[in-house]
Amino acid sequence: MEKKLAVVALGGNALLRGYQIGTIKEQEKNAEDTLRNLMFLLKGGYDLIISHGNGPQVGNILMRNDAGEQVYNIAQMPLDVCVADSQGGIGYMLERVLRNLLNQYKIDREIVTLVTIVEVDIEDEAFKNPRKRVGKIYTKKEADKLTADKGWMFKEEIKEKLSGWRRVVPSPVPKRVLNSHVIESMARQGTIVIAVGGGGVPVYFDKHGNLQSAEAVIDKDSASSVLASKIGADEFYVLTDVPFVYLNYKKENQETKEFLNYSDTKKYLEQRMFGEGSMAPKIKSCLNFIEKGGSMAVITEATKLDNKNYGTKITKEYTK
Amino acid sequence: MEKKLAVVALGGNALLRGYQIGTIKEQEKNAEDTLRNLMFLLKGGYDLIISHGNGPQVGNILMRNDAGEQVYNIAQMPLDVCVADSQGGIGYMLERVLRNLLNQYKIDREIVTLVTIVEVDIEDEAFKNPRKRVGKIYTKKEADKLTADKGWMFKEEIKEKLSGWRRVVPSPVPKRVLNSHVIESMARQGTIVIAVGGGGVPVYFDKHGNLQSAEAVIDKDSASSVLASKIGADEFYVLTDVPFVYLNYKKENQETKEFLNYSDTKKYLEQRMFGEGSMAPKIKSCLNFIEKGGSMAVITEATKLDNKNYGTKITKEYTK
Repeated sequence: MEKKLAVVALGGNALLRGYQIGTIKEQEKNAEDTLRNLMFLLKGGYDLIISHGNGPQVGNILMRNDAGEQVYNIAQMPLDVCVADSQGGIGYMLERVLRNLLNQYKIDREIVTLVTIVEVDIEDEAFKNPRKRVGKIYTKKEADKLTADKGWMFKEEIKEKLSGWRRVVPSPVPKRVLNSHVIESMARQGTIVIAVGGGGVPVYFDKHGNLQSAEAVIDKDSASSVLASKIGADEFYVLTDVPFVYLNYKKENQETKEFLNYSDTKKYLEQRMFGEGSMAPKIKSCLNFIEKGGSMAVITEATKLDNKNYGTKITKEYTK
Repeated sequence: MEKKLAVVALGGNALLRGYQIGTIKEQEKNAEDTLRNLMFLLKGGYDLIISHGNGPQVGNILMRNDAGEQVYNIAQMPLDVCVADSQGGIGYMLERVLRNLLNQYKIDREIVTLVTIVEVDIEDEAFKNPRKRVGKIYTKKEADKLTADKGWMFKEEIKEKLSGWRRVVPSPVPKRVLNSHVIESMARQGTIVIAVGGGGVPVYFDKHGNLQSAEAVIDKDSASSVLASKIGADEFYVLTDVPFVYLNYKKENQETKEFLNYSDTKKYLEQRMFGEGSMAPKIKSCLNFIEKGGSMAVITEATKLDNKNYGTKITKEYTK
């Protein structure tokens, strides 16, 4: 029998917690706590692909670009290059931490980290209505100047301590993970592949068939789901900051769901019973995966993956 | 007959020229001009691995880190993460430009970009005597504070306009390119592999067998040569900013060398007839490659690779 193939998407929380300032030591410790959870998959003989978010990291890279121009007049890099930078830095850190865990658990597997490009559709509605907030908070005057100079779009951001204007970029639907064939081939040979970091670097094909960079970001769960379906993965894990999926989260009638089937989940989603900006997109990614033939999607807390008492298991039909 | 395998190392000049400020448009144009040169290898049916330098880019990333801390109090990333960031950004840019060239030349090949870790020896003499200058120029006072706070080492830098103190880091000899087996396997299947960016992210194994990051940088020609030898590449190309290797470069008795054999080259090297900080390390990398069984090493200008009238060809014995 062919070995099972799992795609595990690490959330931002798996690398950087909200209350932390983001030193490399903090990120390494979080990565280790999270990746240690994956050992049971490897011990179970799974082939494994790991993807990861990059929200806090690419936010920092964008702000360093801004600061670098201010202080040293260094040319800023566009968003696609910043996303690619973050794939390099985070991917390397994950690979090194994972290599040490494999050494500790005496598991003999190769690990490679791929810089991953993901195709989007330039006609995607998201390009007409950018919504994803990235980078620093600007004053109205600064924001107006950047709109004039670079065509950036802004939305007002109201926070406790700091309010102002924040750049918004499109978050289009991922169509295709480039190199999915290579990723699949390596993973099926037993190599652990770290890929699709930050949802991938977004590009589109122009009418001449040339790849152009898109000033956008892609949801990493969505891109990971596209990859998982394309390569026929068996299981899809979404690691986040809650141990279960809840209906009516944080409301009086909150209900924990440990098992969900496809049709009920779809119904709850349509009834908007999952958090719109947070849990709903994860649920959608899981449903897409099940719809295209995946056998199980799991949403759980980053450090609770190997504890079977936690985690919401989504399958086509109820298994329990 | 097995197809020939070439490793091409792109110099800093192939991506960013000294007189340019380093916008992404400039870097893309330079990358295109350089990569267009490689089409003849692909048309000739070669398997291909591309490595690249990262000097100007990682310098900018280090300065952005410094500026980001000054302006926004964002935690700085250590040198290894900055090198990995640069592998992501540069690798992505090269991959995208190369994909468009393949489209233009109607060549059907996959391209993958790997984040690459390279093992060094923590007992390497370089760690006792750091010499490679990186990042911004500091005042004496700033440098002293950084030495006290972070243990950084500095050397005085005297330039025309701006003088001061510059951080120096070790540049140890690369021992092993991690994942060389995977790189070889993909390349031998016809996939173009972009790897060993910036010479690789330097790490060492501690006494427990764990990978620790080294605050160092690795010479990219040297690391590329180690890879090329390990995987039995046939040809090794070093792309730089001069079309030939010269004896006594820029001196009265300068002599152009289009063909060199192993023993003469070794003799010239021992006689210090190549520029110590510039051409000599490239020559050493080529000699190591030939010594370990490579059939030809070529040093030439970034945009003249496909012009057989240029380039110094180093072989074991003279062929002409």
